[in-house]
Amino acid sequence: MKRSQRVASLIKILTDSPNTLFGLQYFCTLFDAAKSSISEDIKEASRAILETGTGYLETIPGKKGGVKFIPDISDESIRELQEEFCKKLCDPSRLLGGNFLYTSDIFYNPVLMTKSARVFAKKFRKQEADCVVTLETKGIPLAFSVAKELGLPLVVIRRDAKISEGSTISINYFSGSEDRLQKMTMSKRALKPNSKVIIIDDFMRAGGSIVGIKEMVNEFNCEVVAIGVAIVSVLPEKKKIKDYTAICYLGNVSTDERIIEVMPNYNI
Amino acid sequence: MKRSQRVASLIKILTDSPNTLFGLQYFCTLFDAAKSSISEDIKEASRAILETGTGYLETIPGKKGGVKFIPDISDESIRELQEEFCKKLCDPSRLLGGNFLYTSDIFYNPVLMTKSARVFAKKFRKQEADCVVTLETKGIPLAFSVAKELGLPLVVIRRDAKISEGSTISINYFSGSEDRLQKMTMSKRALKPNSKVIIIDDFMRAGGSIVGIKEMVNEFNCEVVAIGVAIVSVLPEKKKIKDYTAICYLGNVSTDERIIEVMPNYNI
Repeated sequence: MKRSQRVASLIKILTDSPNTLFGLQYFCTLFDAAKSSISEDIKEASRAILETGTGYLETIPGKKGGVKFIPDISDESIRELQEEFCKKLCDPSRLLGGNFLYTSDIFYNPVLMTKSARVFAKKFRKQEADCVVTLETKGIPLAFSVAKELGLPLVVIRRDAKISEGSTISINYFSGSEDRLQKMTMSKRALKPNSKVIIIDDFMRAGGSIVGIKEMVNEFNCEVVAIGVAIVSVLPEKKKIKDYTAICYLGNVSTDERIIEVMPNYNI
Repeated sequence: MKRSQRVASLIKILTDSPNTLFGLQYFCTLFDAAKSSISEDIKEASRAILETGTGYLETIPGKKGGVKFIPDISDESIRELQEEFCKKLCDPSRLLGGNFLYTSDIFYNPVLMTKSARVFAKKFRKQEADCVVTLETKGIPLAFSVAKELGLPLVVIRRDAKISEGSTISINYFSGSEDRLQKMTMSKRALKPNSKVIIIDDFMRAGGSIVGIKEMVNEFNCEVVAIGVAIVSVLPEKKKIKDYTAICYLGNVSTDERIIEVMPNYNI
């Protein structure tokens, strides 16, 4: 195998499993090559990945060391993503009755969700979380993508208890969006005690459901270390939570006047 | 930029957006290189990707041509995945009351779902589908991953109509698993008429919910071209649908006797 082919294979394998450590020996066996050759390959792969702007390689020295791919996204790419997000979102054909917006196509778009996930993965990587948690349904692809980028498992909180979830814990919370009391349910098997948790959701108004998720996570003696929400409504100004990261903000929405105000979060 | 770095960048970009065509000119501009150089780079990238066994490059000649990455998975890797799936599934700690199994951790596992998605993507690629459809909730990560591998949008059918889905079409269907009549709801905006649809789901017993999804798809004057289900129960023998692809089959499950029988689908 030529060096360029080894380097390319190495890149494919590492980037397929972000934030996952591969020992040098793994590649020595795979390519039937000496450690010194693999080390050179890794250096070259590292330069190449840096050029793509989609991440970098981290090498950990020592016996239990190795190399892993850390996904990254440049500030320029974050701006491009935010602009794409805002442009899609402010299309007047999204307007539904009662100043609601149709956003399912955005939150189920694989390319857009993968890019958005990289923003959160970059921002939250240092938290050393143990898993990503979301509340069904529309945030699942984004939360799943964040979990993938961080090499973590995903936990999905359900609305109603399902027989296939085994014993569950349920809590009630007030949803401002739906203006009523709602329920969420989580399998007792889903989360290990003392885990560090990242919450990911698609949309937030006052933050009632995030408060609910936090409360649920605390029921498992776990700790929320970061909160990422794709779209956050500017109103109400007073949120029930702080320390969340938004990709963009939703301002005034009026079905009658055909207005959708969206702006990127420049402090991301 | 050295050739090996260009080749590596090319691989990262192409494999990040499977089944998406990139014109040669795109890379000429990006790398500031001549078409002849890029053509050589693509040949080298193609060989390297083949070596990884995760896919191959398809080049389309002509003015509107270019190159795209087609994800692939070797028969050997499919067997490995099936074995991993079966091994995880037959762990007796999954047993819940009433012969139900806890499977959420499997269906929310990013690495496992990405690999499983490649099996379906390989199998269904020739169908030239326009989108992937699933019914919430547990099949969403798998369906999302299949959509990503095929470069297609995802559509999620909801149980209940949500205000943010706009006008919807609802149908009732009989769920054998739950032994009762159930409802599913889909936004009228979700699917364009005359689309070709791939159905992806996590689990199937008699196939009642898949029949429901098919009926729903037909309501939109669309056609189901393929059906992929991760786990299919051996019983009942008589299914309501045919022409589905399973990753593995679930045989006898007994909570009392602590038995879970699982076997790979060798005809995949």
